[in-house]
Amino acid sequence: MNKFTTISLGDISFMKSITLILFFMSLTINAQIDRVEPPFWYAGMHNPELQIMFYGKNIAQYEVTASNSIAITEVKKTENPNYLFVTINTKNVAATDIVFTFKKDSKTAFTQTYSLKKRREKSAERKSFDASDMMYLIMPDRFANGNPKNDSNSATVEKYNRDLPGGRHGGDIQGIIKNLDYISSLGATAIWSTPLCEDNDKAFSYHTYAQSDVYKIDPRYGTNEDYVRLSAEMHKRDMKLVMDYVTNHWGIEHWMMKDLPTNDWIHQFEKYTQTNHKRSTISDINASKIDTEICLDGWFVPTMPDLNQSNPLMLNYLKQNAIWWIEYADLDGFRVDTYNYSDPAGIASWTKAITDEYPNFNIVGEIWMHDQAQMAYWQKDSKIGAIQNYNSYLPSVMDFTLHDAIGTVFNEDDGTWDQGMVKVYDNFANDFLYPNINNMLVFAENHDTNRINHVYNNDFKKYQMTMALIATVRGIPQLYYGSEIGMSGDKEKGDADIRQDFPGGWLGDKNNAFTKEGRTIGQNKYFDFTSKLFQWRKTNEAVHFGKMTHYIPENNVYVYFRYTDKKTVMVIMNNSKENQTINTARFKENIKEFTTAKNILTDFTFQISTEITLEPKSVVILELN
Amino acid sequence: MNKFTTISLGDISFMKSITLILFFMSLTINAQIDRVEPPFWYAGMHNPELQIMFYGKNIAQYEVTASNSIAITEVKKTENPNYLFVTINTKNVAATDIVFTFKKDSKTAFTQTYSLKKRREKSAERKSFDASDMMYLIMPDRFANGNPKNDSNSATVEKYNRDLPGGRHGGDIQGIIKNLDYISSLGATAIWSTPLCEDNDKAFSYHTYAQSDVYKIDPRYGTNEDYVRLSAEMHKRDMKLVMDYVTNHWGIEHWMMKDLPTNDWIHQFEKYTQTNHKRSTISDINASKIDTEICLDGWFVPTMPDLNQSNPLMLNYLKQNAIWWIEYADLDGFRVDTYNYSDPAGIASWTKAITDEYPNFNIVGEIWMHDQAQMAYWQKDSKIGAIQNYNSYLPSVMDFTLHDAIGTVFNEDDGTWDQGMVKVYDNFANDFLYPNINNMLVFAENHDTNRINHVYNNDFKKYQMTMALIATVRGIPQLYYGSEIGMSGDKEKGDADIRQDFPGGWLGDKNNAFTKEGRTIGQNKYFDFTSKLFQWRKTNEAVHFGKMTHYIPENNVYVYFRYTDKKTVMVIMNNSKENQTINTARFKENIKEFTTAKNILTDFTFQISTEITLEPKSVVILELN
Repeated sequence: MNKFTTISLGDISFMKSITLILFFMSLTINAQIDRVEPPFWYAGMHNPELQIMFYGKNIAQYEVTASNSIAITEVKKTENPNYLFVTINTKNVAATDIVFTFKKDSKTAFTQTYSLKKRREKSAERKSFDASDMMYLIMPDRFANGNPKNDSNSATVEKYNRDLPGGRHGGDIQGIIKNLDYISSLGATAIWSTPLCEDNDKAFSYHTYAQSDVYKIDPRYGTNEDYVRLSAEMHKRDMKLVMDYVTNHWGIEHWMMKDLPTNDWIHQFEKYTQTNHKRSTISDINASKIDTEICLDGWFVPTMPDLNQSNPLMLNYLKQNAIWWIEYADLDGFRVDTYNYSDPAGIASWTKAITDEYPNFNIVGEIWMHDQAQMAYWQKDSKIGAIQNYNSYLPSVMDFTLHDAIGTVFNEDDGTWDQGMVKVYDNFANDFLYPNINNMLVFAENHDTNRINHVYNNDFKKYQMTMALIATVRGIPQLYYGSEIGMSGDKEKGDADIRQDFPGGWLGDKNNAFTKEGRTIGQNKYFDFTSKLFQWRKTNEAVHFGKMTHYIPENNVYVYFRYTDKKTVMVIMNNSKENQTINTARFKENIKEFTTAKNILTDFTFQISTEITLEPKSVVILELN
Repeated sequence: MNKFTTISLGDISFMKSITLILFFMSLTINAQIDRVEPPFWYAGMHNPELQIMFYGKNIAQYEVTASNSIAITEVKKTENPNYLFVTINTKNVAATDIVFTFKKDSKTAFTQTYSLKKRREKSAERKSFDASDMMYLIMPDRFANGNPKNDSNSATVEKYNRDLPGGRHGGDIQGIIKNLDYISSLGATAIWSTPLCEDNDKAFSYHTYAQSDVYKIDPRYGTNEDYVRLSAEMHKRDMKLVMDYVTNHWGIEHWMMKDLPTNDWIHQFEKYTQTNHKRSTISDINASKIDTEICLDGWFVPTMPDLNQSNPLMLNYLKQNAIWWIEYADLDGFRVDTYNYSDPAGIASWTKAITDEYPNFNIVGEIWMHDQAQMAYWQKDSKIGAIQNYNSYLPSVMDFTLHDAIGTVFNEDDGTWDQGMVKVYDNFANDFLYPNINNMLVFAENHDTNRINHVYNNDFKKYQMTMALIATVRGIPQLYYGSEIGMSGDKEKGDADIRQDFPGGWLGDKNNAFTKEGRTIGQNKYFDFTSKLFQWRKTNEAVHFGKMTHYIPENNVYVYFRYTDKKTVMVIMNNSKENQTINTARFKENIKEFTTAKNILTDFTFQISTEITLEPKSVVILELN
């Protein structure tokens, strides 16, 4: 366990006058405060407790008091005298500036002003993304360079070099803002951008998962204010901003790594120990202790120290940082990286803290597993998790088993008992395992996988089937930037290949795929289809929250319905290489008394007869009336 | 729903004098009773209600009364006047003969004597098979012909023809009895024989899953008395007899099919409708009604009418038949064929009725699925089933996903993230899904699958690894007759190929594998290994009910431990094609202070040092001390 020097001050009246015991009296030089985190906070939060971290040389030797009759409920010191964790109670405290006074030998050494700001109206009740949205995933360094002036700067080590596949290419927040109308025209209503906080690694910093300061936007992307502006610009367009949050690790260049608050702030081993990635150990009753420990505590890579969420100070730091960003940047949701590599109790507590503050806030976790029971384990209120009395409180999980199926299915021309559309059918056959099936993120690809247009060798028909699928099944569809214009990328060639620059994002790009005129004929074919599909999706509640009925695939043809009391959508997917005719009588429990069907991709309406014939490798989405 | 003509007689004093309304007065010929089922019953059962089915021409026109003050609690008639279902209450009735009197117009037409017999002592508390057992699976027609006189007979259509791969070969109960010492010498403590009740199909009757009379042993196997004798002979040897029970279907030649009690006694369709085998529809919240109906109600093959367990009379018939066999033949367990093709509520009720009568009675169901959550759904008290408020009450399920893994793993020389021993590891990683992991049946093959020696092309090392695995992991190991002497069989060539005659079971067989002298050198190699392994298994409680700890496979080497407070067994499986050395330090949480290891296959004991090296494709089972 942690070796804190803890002074717990439960009685407030007693607390104000108490003299804090100083453990590091031998150090006498004046402290100055280098960092205060969170840098400010908000009045009127659901959780009134706020743990402020003061960081400065020998800060722990001072007594601290607060102005405005603010109650200091706990002061925690660690084995590192440069940290002081001061918890205050903000209950019923209005927005104000608090002055913290640091004394030594009863004399004031220095003071620190700290702001409690006013929250936005109805901040706690904010809506979030859900199955009515389509989420567009952007890797900001690779999307658009809206402000070439911030491509390099003195504060961060790695400089602009677009010639380097794994280098900084200059994409930024302004590039996203500039292209919001493009994204919106595609039918997307939410953006998940990979992390934007500072990553000061010497190389490969563009992916930004090795953050060096989690309170500051990387200057190569812009400023904190730019990020707030992105959020505001999106809200103007009824779009939602989803932040990519990383609980599991920071970068080796994180400022705290040079002066750890506690030895167990991160997981440390005698020698470098990599995670074994076997997250099944967490629920595996047969797992060895050592395998489970290495899974959870081992590092991803040597440049990403693994955070210890079982350390309460650390965990609280992460909770507050996350909540700070929601409040500060007016966020609409989180995507959480490597969700179940974190300490299971810690990450559940983190998730609960956030959703306690924002009951409607959606958080989608990366649960990259290949077994549905294991995935369902991690969704909030899971009956599978409950087998082990575990509740992650995570509202949304990514449907990685669907991703697995999508990764091969449209290359399987023959439908057998385990090949072809039955793979997709089988995925949905296990929906009963999930407590909230509409809150699954459904996707064909992301920044860590093969691009779908590589998987299907830019076969447009297969692209259409893929997109039609994720647009019409239950859950929240997610599209990875660029696929909508046919971008491809091969994971085996390295991450850079699946994270190429969006054409037109850079001044001087010959091909500007952000505009109809700038796109090639081929790009327009992809874009027009995708836009038509997802713009339609916005309008049809049946594919947002409707029920689903599906039928066992026959001849590699998969038929399913999404429906509410008011609307019914029928999807037919012919994954075989031959024309296929279905007999509509089989589907009478869903076709009911409907007589006409409108193909939403062609706007062609026809009478429903006894048979419907589909071309090879094709899909139709029909609105029944 | 059923169209019963029901007379429910709740009040006993009233009941005795009541005049049953006769619906078929126009028919005046005398009835005679052709069948009474169950043919007799037992006094002192937990469930005092007994539903006796009287079958005879126009039997439904008679009033029925019972002697000995026996309460008739219900008389049910169906749309077929040849059936009368009379329920009596046997509470506090001692073993006796009851006389049923059948009257018409207040005159006695005829009587029928019915025996309530005395139960064996402690019949209800009988023990059953469990993880301390090893189960030997026999297909009786193909095992040994102990009595050539019964090979053909006038009562059954298909005659002896050993030249026909799918014909009757003459194996019988006497053949099993004769070879019990052989089976016991192998280390088996239980026998599951495929069904023995009469199957009067014209062809392929040897598999006996299309039964034509479920109260009578097929005369080509022997008599009911022979079956009781088999049970008694086994009990003499401390062995357990497991009956293969078929709830889902009977044969088209079943006597009742010619004169159905009710139209819905079986599932009937406008035209022949085969099951789609998609049992995931049962729990699939997205499944169409028609797919689920065809799954459950469709027939296996045209010669096997699908029984309707949602018909209470039918269901009760099956319950009583099952209980009758337990009581009559002193059974030690059931294996239930195609368990989840039956009506889910019906089969749960059937299972509960049996385990209510015999609380320790084990029943293993054929849940042939490929997803562990779906399999776990079907085990008694499953938390997965509970998601849908379903409890099958089925104590034991077959570990078909382990079977899937075993079917390829030892051909996978390279251990990758999803190939090689990790497949086996991953199977056990999901043990937490099952409510009773020690009550899984573990097996490499059965009468419906490829033989393991075909899968592994008679590679003895792979056979050793397979058998070592099923002998040492949690659950009840099951061995398919003949594999222990190297028998092979290719499912693709047809069922007959995997169900060949055991050599030596027939008079005149040149090769008699039942004796050491009769076996070839090759057969003795297989037998000696198998016998050594399973005889040892009998002695080690750690592999019966001990805990399991396993380690993530490295270099295609899988290491796991089974242990109790008293005993620890370490298993190391090198599935690679190279020598592999493991560092024992990794396993210290299980090796603890043990200093010596005894290889139970070679009886060689050695000091545990820092490294253990294994030959390619080899396994060691070590008792640690």
